[in-house]
Amino acid sequence: MLEEILKQVAAGQLSPEEAQQQLATFENLGFAKVDHHRKKRQGFPEVIFGEGKEASHIIDISRAMLSKGDNIFITRMEKGKADTVIAALPEFQYDEVSRTMFLKNNEFEQTFNGYIAIVCAGTSDLPVAEEAAKTAEACGIEVRRFYDVGVAGIHRLFAHIDEIREATVSVVIAGMEGALPSVVGGLVAHPIIAVPTSVGYGANFHGLSALLTMLNSCASGISVVNIDNGFGGGYNAVLIHQIANRSI
Amino acid sequence: MLEEILKQVAAGQLSPEEAQQQLATFENLGFAKVDHHRKKRQGFPEVIFGEGKEASHIIDISRAMLSKGDNIFITRMEKGKADTVIAALPEFQYDEVSRTMFLKNNEFEQTFNGYIAIVCAGTSDLPVAEEAAKTAEACGIEVRRFYDVGVAGIHRLFAHIDEIREATVSVVIAGMEGALPSVVGGLVAHPIIAVPTSVGYGANFHGLSALLTMLNSCASGISVVNIDNGFGGGYNAVLIHQIANRSI
Amino acid sequence: MLEEILKQVAAGQLSPEEAQQQLATFENLGFAKVDHHRKKRQGFPEVIFGEGKEASHIIDISRAMLSKGDNIFITRMEKGKADTVIAALPEFQYDEVSRTMFLKNNEFEQTFNGYIAIVCAGTSDLPVAEEAAKTAEACGIEVRRFYDVGVAGIHRLFAHIDEIREATVSVVIAGMEGALPSVVGGLVAHPIIAVPTSVGYGANFHGLSALLTMLNSCASGISVVNIDNGFGGGYNAVLIHQIANRSI
Amino acid sequence: MLEEILKQVAAGQLSPEEAQQQLATFENLGFAKVDHHRKKRQGFPEVIFGEGKEASHIIDISRAMLSKGDNIFITRMEKGKADTVIAALPEFQYDEVSRTMFLKNNEFEQTFNGYIAIVCAGTSDLPVAEEAAKTAEACGIEVRRFYDVGVAGIHRLFAHIDEIREATVSVVIAGMEGALPSVVGGLVAHPIIAVPTSVGYGANFHGLSALLTMLNSCASGISVVNIDNGFGGGYNAVLIHQIANRSI
Amino acid sequence: MLEEILKQVAAGQLSPEEAQQQLATFENLGFAKVDHHRKKRQGFPEVIFGEGKEASHIIDISRAMLSKGDNIFITRMEKGKADTVIAALPEFQYDEVSRTMFLKNNEFEQTFNGYIAIVCAGTSDLPVAEEAAKTAEACGIEVRRFYDVGVAGIHRLFAHIDEIREATVSVVIAGMEGALPSVVGGLVAHPIIAVPTSVGYGANFHGLSALLTMLNSCASGISVVNIDNGFGGGYNAVLIHQIANRSI
Amino acid sequence: MLEEILKQVAAGQLSPEEAQQQLATFENLGFAKVDHHRKKRQGFPEVIFGEGKEASHIIDISRAMLSKGDNIFITRMEKGKADTVIAALPEFQYDEVSRTMFLKNNEFEQTFNGYIAIVCAGTSDLPVAEEAAKTAEACGIEVRRFYDVGVAGIHRLFAHIDEIREATVSVVIAGMEGALPSVVGGLVAHPIIAVPTSVGYGANFHGLSALLTMLNSCASGISVVNIDNGFGGGYNAVLIHQIANRSI
Amino acid sequence: MLEEILKQVAAGQLSPEEAQQQLATFENLGFAKVDHHRKKRQGFPEVIFGEGKEASHIIDISRAMLSKGDNIFITRMEKGKADTVIAALPEFQYDEVSRTMFLKNNEFEQTFNGYIAIVCAGTSDLPVAEEAAKTAEACGIEVRRFYDVGVAGIHRLFAHIDEIREATVSVVIAGMEGALPSVVGGLVAHPIIAVPTSVGYGANFHGLSALLTMLNSCASGISVVNIDNGFGGGYNAVLIHQIANRSI
Amino acid sequence: MLEEILKQVAAGQLSPEEAQQQLATFENLGFAKVDHHRKKRQGFPEVIFGEGKEASHIIDISRAMLSKGDNIFITRMEKGKADTVIAALPEFQYDEVSRTMFLKNNEFEQTFNGYIAIVCAGTSDLPVAEEAAKTAEACGIEVRRFYDVGVAGIHRLFAHIDEIREATVSVVIAGMEGALPSVVGGLVAHPIIAVPTSVGYGANFHGLSALLTMLNSCASGISVVNIDNGFGGGYNAVLIHQIANRSI
Repeated sequence: MLEEILKQVAAGQLSPEEAQQQLATFENLGFAKVDHHRKKRQGFPEVIFGEGKEASHIIDISRAMLSKGDNIFITRMEKGKADTVIAALPEFQYDEVSRTMFLKNNEFEQTFNGYIAIVCAGTSDLPVAEEAAKTAEACGIEVRRFYDVGVAGIHRLFAHIDEIREATVSVVIAGMEGALPSVVGGLVAHPIIAVPTSVGYGANFHGLSALLTMLNSCASGISVVNIDNGFGGGYNAVLIHQIANRSI
Repeated sequence: MLEEILKQVAAGQLSPEEAQQQLATFENLGFAKVDHHRKKRQGFPEVIFGEGKEASHIIDISRAMLSKGDNIFITRMEKGKADTVIAALPEFQYDEVSRTMFLKNNEFEQTFNGYIAIVCAGTSDLPVAEEAAKTAEACGIEVRRFYDVGVAGIHRLFAHIDEIREATVSVVIAGMEGALPSVVGGLVAHPIIAVPTSVGYGANFHGLSALLTMLNSCASGISVVNIDNGFGGGYNAVLIHQIANRSI
Repeated sequence: MLEEILKQVAAGQLSPEEAQQQLATFENLGFAKVDHHRKKRQGFPEVIFGEGKEASHIIDISRAMLSKGDNIFITRMEKGKADTVIAALPEFQYDEVSRTMFLKNNEFEQTFNGYIAIVCAGTSDLPVAEEAAKTAEACGIEVRRFYDVGVAGIHRLFAHIDEIREATVSVVIAGMEGALPSVVGGLVAHPIIAVPTSVGYGANFHGLSALLTMLNSCASGISVVNIDNGFGGGYNAVLIHQIANRSI
Repeated sequence: MLEEILKQVAAGQLSPEEAQQQLATFENLGFAKVDHHRKKRQGFPEVIFGEGKEASHIIDISRAMLSKGDNIFITRMEKGKADTVIAALPEFQYDEVSRTMFLKNNEFEQTFNGYIAIVCAGTSDLPVAEEAAKTAEACGIEVRRFYDVGVAGIHRLFAHIDEIREATVSVVIAGMEGALPSVVGGLVAHPIIAVPTSVGYGANFHGLSALLTMLNSCASGISVVNIDNGFGGGYNAVLIHQIANRSI
Repeated sequence: MLEEILKQVAAGQLSPEEAQQQLATFENLGFAKVDHHRKKRQGFPEVIFGEGKEASHIIDISRAMLSKGDNIFITRMEKGKADTVIAALPEFQYDEVSRTMFLKNNEFEQTFNGYIAIVCAGTSDLPVAEEAAKTAEACGIEVRRFYDVGVAGIHRLFAHIDEIREATVSVVIAGMEGALPSVVGGLVAHPIIAVPTSVGYGANFHGLSALLTMLNSCASGISVVNIDNGFGGGYNAVLIHQIANRSI
Repeated sequence: MLEEILKQVAAGQLSPEEAQQQLATFENLGFAKVDHHRKKRQGFPEVIFGEGKEASHIIDISRAMLSKGDNIFITRMEKGKADTVIAALPEFQYDEVSRTMFLKNNEFEQTFNGYIAIVCAGTSDLPVAEEAAKTAEACGIEVRRFYDVGVAGIHRLFAHIDEIREATVSVVIAGMEGALPSVVGGLVAHPIIAVPTSVGYGANFHGLSALLTMLNSCASGISVVNIDNGFGGGYNAVLIHQIANRSI
Repeated sequence: MLEEILKQVAAGQLSPEEAQQQLATFENLGFAKVDHHRKKRQGFPEVIFGEGKEASHIIDISRAMLSKGDNIFITRMEKGKADTVIAALPEFQYDEVSRTMFLKNNEFEQTFNGYIAIVCAGTSDLPVAEEAAKTAEACGIEVRRFYDVGVAGIHRLFAHIDEIREATVSVVIAGMEGALPSVVGGLVAHPIIAVPTSVGYGANFHGLSALLTMLNSCASGISVVNIDNGFGGGYNAVLIHQIANRSI
Repeated sequence: MLEEILKQVAAGQLSPEEAQQQLATFENLGFAKVDHHRKKRQGFPEVIFGEGKEASHIIDISRAMLSKGDNIFITRMEKGKADTVIAALPEFQYDEVSRTMFLKNNEFEQTFNGYIAIVCAGTSDLPVAEEAAKTAEACGIEVRRFYDVGVAGIHRLFAHIDEIREATVSVVIAGMEGALPSVVGGLVAHPIIAVPTSVGYGANFHGLSALLTMLNSCASGISVVNIDNGFGGGYNAVLIHQIANRSI
């Protein structure tokens, strides 16, 4: 693109002033291009982190995005705030468990094969697991849910292990001692994104216990995101699933 | 015993001065009695924590014990120090892996049925596992070893699970993420003593990771001892195994 | 059981399809069997962790269990939620101190000899101590309570030490500096389950101080469960007490 | 496979005893199959964690693997120990920076397109970065190295950003404040495996600072492995790169 | 001043008693003089830390200060308390974002050239950033705000980097991973005061993550104040800006 | 006393049974004697830790104590609870700042010379300082208060240093960075009890910062109590002051 | 003293310049006076912290002190360094256990009644206990040692409790779980200085466990010094003992 | 510069290809320019962090810099490594206390007025203090040293406070409890860079205590750098001092 501009200048098709402006724009947009291209190529939605933002603010941002034709996905939305947003933008659909909202403005631009496995230790980890699941679904990717399969009753996991093995990538969510990703990691051959949750009490220290467990896993192929970061778990899986769906 | 002394005083068989001395002795020994009784009843050895004690000191203590007819078990002995002790007391047998020494001065006073399972995640945890095993064996109790059955290859554990289930109690040792006790805890019906080890690196923080994992286990029936405390794990199991061998 | 199925197949008494289904079931139930057997053999109740579960959810689970004839024990129930459950299932009895509920649907299947000692440092530790006590009682095991016997007034402990010594196992609960298990551990010959509580302030760090004290105890025969985990303390004691009541 | 066996039993082609043995093997190998299949399909080497293993032990393991025709990759090998291994197995090649050894016994079974980017903040992080790089290369995957591009001189990163963008996945290694993955994460569209290193001093706390930074990254698409875990970083990238090379 | 007093005593112009009183005063005020001089020379306002002080108390202090002709700046004021103060002293102006109040009683005594750059990573960090900004403005110093320029979208920072470079000193505020000061520190030649915020969740540990990141920055010229200490960041910048405005 | 009992038995004045009972009592009271003697000798009040106790419980305890003629001192009482207690026992006097209550049932049994210095860094530390002061006053000991003399304006401390020096012992209370005890410790020759408070924010970590500062003080003669433990600070000073008032 | 100087100036007996110099000296010595007075009044030795100082440096400081007639006490001296110092100053006596040195240059200026109790949990804590004991003895104060009386065998403590009770003040030293001060604190009426030691392993965290235990003690009358700070424990006891020996 | 290049292209003085290359260079150097300009304007030396770099590597870097006419300053150099470098480049001067090396290749390009105060609590903090001092001196700035003026003997600080006040900026270094910056901060009107050191033991936790103290200082105008980061302290002061020497 730089080469092109310079050639136009040399050819007199562009004045130095015009070129300078175009180059400035090019420079300014240089790194923004990334986000733009990603959406264009993938049909991924714009993502808003709802926590700490006021409903009115979210409505404004959403309207701006809608005018550009984006799908919109919002995380960490309390019900009350979600209701306010829906009153203004009734196309939004709110999911109470994951506390996420989705507005599907356009068809997904890409069709994906395969699915992501969302594996979760206990019922208390559900909000985080669902945040991961909804993130992937908002990108048009199929997820399969394997919930309440914690290590204290490991036969529950084995009942589903073949279906988990066929996934492209697993997001494994666990609180308490956080041992599930290690066990799954020993049973599957694909990458695992481990998400510690703050579920627990006492020496759990708000998820620190599960976090350390996952970082120290002796199984290979496990990487970890922040405590309760269901979105992060889901989004990492989306990026990997997308790679599995393109030819290089 | 107090009653007896008083009656002898009333009967003039004991002077008040003599009684006072006996009561003082009674009082002084009052709580020591526990240890004494325990040994007498069980044939348990005297245990010496070798770390930080000089060889000459250990030899002196051992000689005093031998004169009372005790079996002697020493933990945390480096090889060099052990050699010095053995030079003076050649009846000691040193085990390099567990860094323990045992001198069997007398036959075990009690015969035990059943066995304790020592379950261990990786080969690096062996020194701690063997410290637990040697502790139980020094009490005359059979142990069965199930080593290198960590959760990252959980089929190794399943190959032995029936034999583990038949134990009275399990000592489960693990470093790294320390998830093994949770998995075993979901598969057996007896109590589990979990021993975290300092094996690992980085965010393991010298065993803190495994310790927290075990304390937060969502499986029931698991209690935990200090990091690398193989003796503690073994000794707790011995106490439980002993209960299983007496009628109440 | 596997052998039997195969023989029936060989004998033509079972089609391969039927055998496969039975084996699948066998496999699915393989590890669940543990829990099932445990209950059958011991008359132990099903345990529900009430925290984070909604009343309606708990009612549904309870009804399913009742239909199978189980006794039901629920921990971590706030009064309001308990009231809702009792409105639907009036056979439940709620204990406000321990925040536990019990529904005794059937007689205990096993009669136990002996008792568990529940030893507790201060009156603020009562909720945790009672959670341990109620857990054991819901399994049909006698407990004896020794409360408010903390180390700062150690004569209170000594007044009861003989009765504590006669227990099969002690659950020792303490907050603040958590020193009680060490002192009891030096006075009794049976295993001790230590339960740190979050009672304290300042450098107590929500129970961390008591937890570390207990893990570092220089007395032998002490193992530790999570902070405030009265259920865990009680349940470990139940497993040990049960072993003391069977012949091996 | 289960179905097949049962049909053979029904057909009398297999005795119940033979079937039982085959099913046992099937069960035993059930989960081991994973590792086996992985190697077969990918030509990935067997990996040995060298730390804490004696040279003689490593030689024995290696010989056993060689007899099965495996490639062998060993991590965390000090030079002295490596020399001993090479004296016995001179086909090994030792890399002093990454402290890894590789023995290429067979050709890679799969040919991969594309490359993995190994991005590293400072020269002190090199050993970890090279461990990641050697891991990928031992799997037959091309890596491109972008070293010494830390955020304190961010123009160094920008000089290479286009080539990094074209990678399938990036492994981003940083010590000190660990900010590099956040910056790279804002500039590329593919998944990032972040590896904190223990490089630093003072309030770095042996890598804790970099670890927390990476877990808290506000850029999407970043997941984290343990401190100094170059192998883990590399291996996660390998799994992702492999997915990008197969059709689903 | 001491010399002067002594000469007056020698000259009989001052009695020893009077001198003693003056010296006492001199001594008592010796160190208070600092604050007084600072205000006199700079026109800096008196600063009140509002948190934990009652409205009535703040009104009293403010009235006392007003009678001395001071400007008054109050930090950490909740809206309700601010309203009470304004009801009594309506000249105060409250800023809801930064939770600060200012009462400009007199013209600034000094005119400053140049400006301070307030650079802030995300919109959630605004309250801290604005506390820093308002602190500088209450001292009569111009600030320029560069908000929402976090490292995950680094082109946003580059769009403004030239204007930031021209500042005397930068206050750089960031939560989450706190990487922004490192990046800015590599791009500007003036001192940077880094302010970590408690914005984040999970392994952020209430700002600890950002704090450690900033302390470990590999960029030179960065020093750090307490978590969420916007006032501290602003005040340090004021002291530096003031030095830049005087000749030495 | 033991001797006496035995002589009575020998003299037939006491039956063995009666003696046994008396010895049991002696034993039971053996250690309780301490508390009793302390009060008798010093006129110190009984102290109740109010936090976590219900008003009705406190009223019952108080009434029991009053019947024995004790003075009663209660710490950590919220206003509402105090009001309930006063409604039942109007002789109590509640102090809102220190959240303590005192009921002076009898004259102090001992008159003390000298005074304790209560030195406190900032106005926010007042509740803790006053808890220390009220503790000493409830023991009949004079205290002198030196408040708001923190190290950031050290001339305020120097104005009072001579009067502080004349105290028997100082209780020095500080939050934030907790540096005051070090400075006072360098200026006085008597023992200092340092009390860290949880006043502060950010990297203060609820008083941890001040606690560590005080433990690491390079001044001699400083010992430390728990965070916010004003009672502990005051009570340690009382014990020291009492020693200074008796002849040995 | 200030008054005097001023009067001399008024009387012409002192020039302003001379007065100024005297006042400067007065000011410089103003606070140093403390240390000087302390030594003069008490015959306390000068104390040198030996760690990190070179032998030659220590010899120089010692010589300077000797010329002023001081007794000298040095802590934290390794044997090798001590030998070098003794080669130069053979009057020093080195104690290997406590790693302290003492040179008694003059008789103690004060004679003390009573004694300090040094109470210590295990033999591994001896170096710290002896540092405390030697500190008090170097001040001319009698100490009585009660060693190896840890809480795991509490009868050992009870054998000596009466003699401990008669001390003016106790220094109680303990590592591992650090519970001893709490138990002693419930049995004696005098102040206790608690000294945590770094003796232990695993979750002891270099003394943190014992430190937290002591800070959280539920016994009254306990204050704490830094981990392994035997000197601090001894010196605090000395200050208290000295108060008990003077009339106020 | 961009404008110029474009005009040359438009004028045919530069081919598009040449322009593209120039622009690339411009882009590459875009951010490096900063460092370059800094040196040019200030005569500041190039700084090498010696730790972890081999002597031969340092010699190579140094030679490259010398060829550009730079002054060179190296931190964290052990004596042995320094000797090797000096053998090759004898113009270097090594300072053993601060472990820094300096090679003054050219005259300082700027002459500075005023001085920086280096204030340090104890003699053990000297290496860090001298690293700060040497850093400033290597930039051609005068420093004045005020050493061994810790808060436990605060009169030592007061003897020098006027001279400290006249400095442009102070670097205040302290280990142990780290209270010195708070005290200095209350006495001077200029900015303070606080440097915590790892000097201390026990609950010092390798400098964490001093670090937290400084971050929580209640004095205004204090900012903090990493533990033991003398260079960082000195360099921040240099940047501030430089601002004080230019007109804006």
